[in-house]
Amino acid sequence: MSQPQLVEDLLDGDHRALARVISKIEDRRPGYRDIVAKLHEHTGTADVIGITGSPGSGKSTLVDKLAATYRERGLTVGVIAIDPSSPFTGGAVLGDRIRMVSNIGDMDMFFRSMSARGTLGGISTATADAVKALDAFGKDRILVETVGAGQNEIDIVRTADTVTVLVPPGSGDDVQMLKAGILEIGDVFVVNKADLPGSNRTVQELREMLQQGGGGTLDSAGHHAGGADGGEDGDWEPVIVETVASEGEGVDELVETFDNHTDHLDHTGDREESARRRYAAEIRRLLREDVNDLVAEQLQRQGGLDSFVDSVLERETNPYAVADELVEPIAECVDDHDEG
Amino acid sequence: MSQPQLVEDLLDGDHRALARVISKIEDRRPGYRDIVAKLHEHTGTADVIGITGSPGSGKSTLVDKLAATYRERGLTVGVIAIDPSSPFTGGAVLGDRIRMVSNIGDMDMFFRSMSARGTLGGISTATADAVKALDAFGKDRILVETVGAGQNEIDIVRTADTVTVLVPPGSGDDVQMLKAGILEIGDVFVVNKADLPGSNRTVQELREMLQQGGGGTLDSAGHHAGGADGGEDGDWEPVIVETVASEGEGVDELVETFDNHTDHLDHTGDREESARRRYAAEIRRLLREDVNDLVAEQLQRQGGLDSFVDSVLERETNPYAVADELVEPIAECVDDHDEG
Repeated sequence: MSQPQLVEDLLDGDHRALARVISKIEDRRPGYRDIVAKLHEHTGTADVIGITGSPGSGKSTLVDKLAATYRERGLTVGVIAIDPSSPFTGGAVLGDRIRMVSNIGDMDMFFRSMSARGTLGGISTATADAVKALDAFGKDRILVETVGAGQNEIDIVRTADTVTVLVPPGSGDDVQMLKAGILEIGDVFVVNKADLPGSNRTVQELREMLQQGGGGTLDSAGHHAGGADGGEDGDWEPVIVETVASEGEGVDELVETFDNHTDHLDHTGDREESARRRYAAEIRRLLREDVNDLVAEQLQRQGGLDSFVDSVLERETNPYAVADELVEPIAECVDDHDEG
Repeated sequence: MSQPQLVEDLLDGDHRALARVISKIEDRRPGYRDIVAKLHEHTGTADVIGITGSPGSGKSTLVDKLAATYRERGLTVGVIAIDPSSPFTGGAVLGDRIRMVSNIGDMDMFFRSMSARGTLGGISTATADAVKALDAFGKDRILVETVGAGQNEIDIVRTADTVTVLVPPGSGDDVQMLKAGILEIGDVFVVNKADLPGSNRTVQELREMLQQGGGGTLDSAGHHAGGADGGEDGDWEPVIVETVASEGEGVDELVETFDNHTDHLDHTGDREESARRRYAAEIRRLLREDVNDLVAEQLQRQGGLDSFVDSVLERETNPYAVADELVEPIAECVDDHDEG
């Protein structure tokens, strides 16, 4: 099938075309760039919700229930699940696929696992591109699910409009571990398995840490979360919601909290601001990737890396001189080009 | 002072010049590139030993004792201590400085803490450059000390000839945590605080994991470590050494293990092979840095990122088209340049 046809089919609502486009994006098959470029103008209508949490926090079950709740409300849903930290263990991904079987047959519920084959930049780019495909397709809600809270995961969930952090109740260690970067980016915190002993302490500790970190106060917590409409002009205050995902408890409140957050984004102009930030990061990332390809070609043209390494080893030259030798011609001809 | 003079003074054995050069490297002050480039041809005589381990593994004490032992044997020593994971906590670094006070006055014992101000690539580059300064200065042994076992730390210790991993005895968790990438790169494993309960189990677990991972058998362990001369043509088998650094126990054996490893590197040609790999990585890293600078300039020339982001936001263009627009002129003029 030609690429323009594939894009047209996707825009016409063909789920197979959507699946094929996402596969092309994931594998970076030839032509994926043109496809994503064409899709861009059709994006901007979906609410994108990023959900991160450590393994065992009940994330998969929660995402499942969220998707089902959106479907009950007549909204179409796309789910992208990524496990960036373990490229070699297919286990989690396979488990994800199995658990979504319950939704097979519902064509307006699109689920896709993505592996972390590429680099850090690679998986962030691929995720952002896959989200665009779902957005252009017309999905109302897109859930981006990722495991863990490292830099990779932070980069991925940041591609979302609403960043959700799952906190498993129990040892305070879990809350302590959240300190490193994830507290700052969460719009909504979910203490899942809220029926377990220790969940009250977890909520309490989380609230204290958010107050220390953000300097603000929480609008609400637990079952009051839905009341935090954020409709005022002020900053969004992170909201804590308690759920028992396996029982479906708290999921409606969570959905309302997400809606409140996107309302807030629209009223305050924060949505545009965050899109602006996201596009800036995306352009920077693509530039870096493209220019690194260019350098690899330049290196190839000059006889490959090995001959340079030999000379460095013989002390005939040094790494900085090699970098200058390779980059200066590029820099000069960019200068000439501008003057000419 | 002019830069050629500074380099000359360093090569003449002036410790103040050495300190100034490393400061320039750390802060990337103008001219540091030329200095490092000039130093390169004077490098290649030092044995570089990388040491990594989690906080609390007794790494600082061990490095201190190692340095003292080398000095007793009439060898000059340079130490670079890096804490890449916590750029904000000056604590560990300050602690390092204080503990080395005992060596002040011994001018052939050079100690320097480096902070992780830059990016991942930045701190690896700065460490490699600082090692070059110490090597060119004529230090016989260079110890590169870093905290933790994440990707940053792995990148840093890999700049060494001999990679040493400190394992604190106790819970098997510590050994489990080593799994992620660090087992593969360790030439020497040190179970420090070997007088603590649980250390035997740690040694045993470590040995099992190394056997599983490498597929080989350990030459020796504990007090037999010095016997692993690796003089045969085969691969180096990782050696486990038990120490009680605070008492100085096992430190002589550890020094002998390091010597055995460097002998092995020389006999088998592995030293050249590892230098080759290191220089290749260094050139790639510098190319990436330089080209990213070039892209930033190009972006600036075209009116800065903001105007592009505006157009992307208005759906007049898309991130991939922007990347093409900025990179293609560079690519084309490189092509023209080659043909001309």
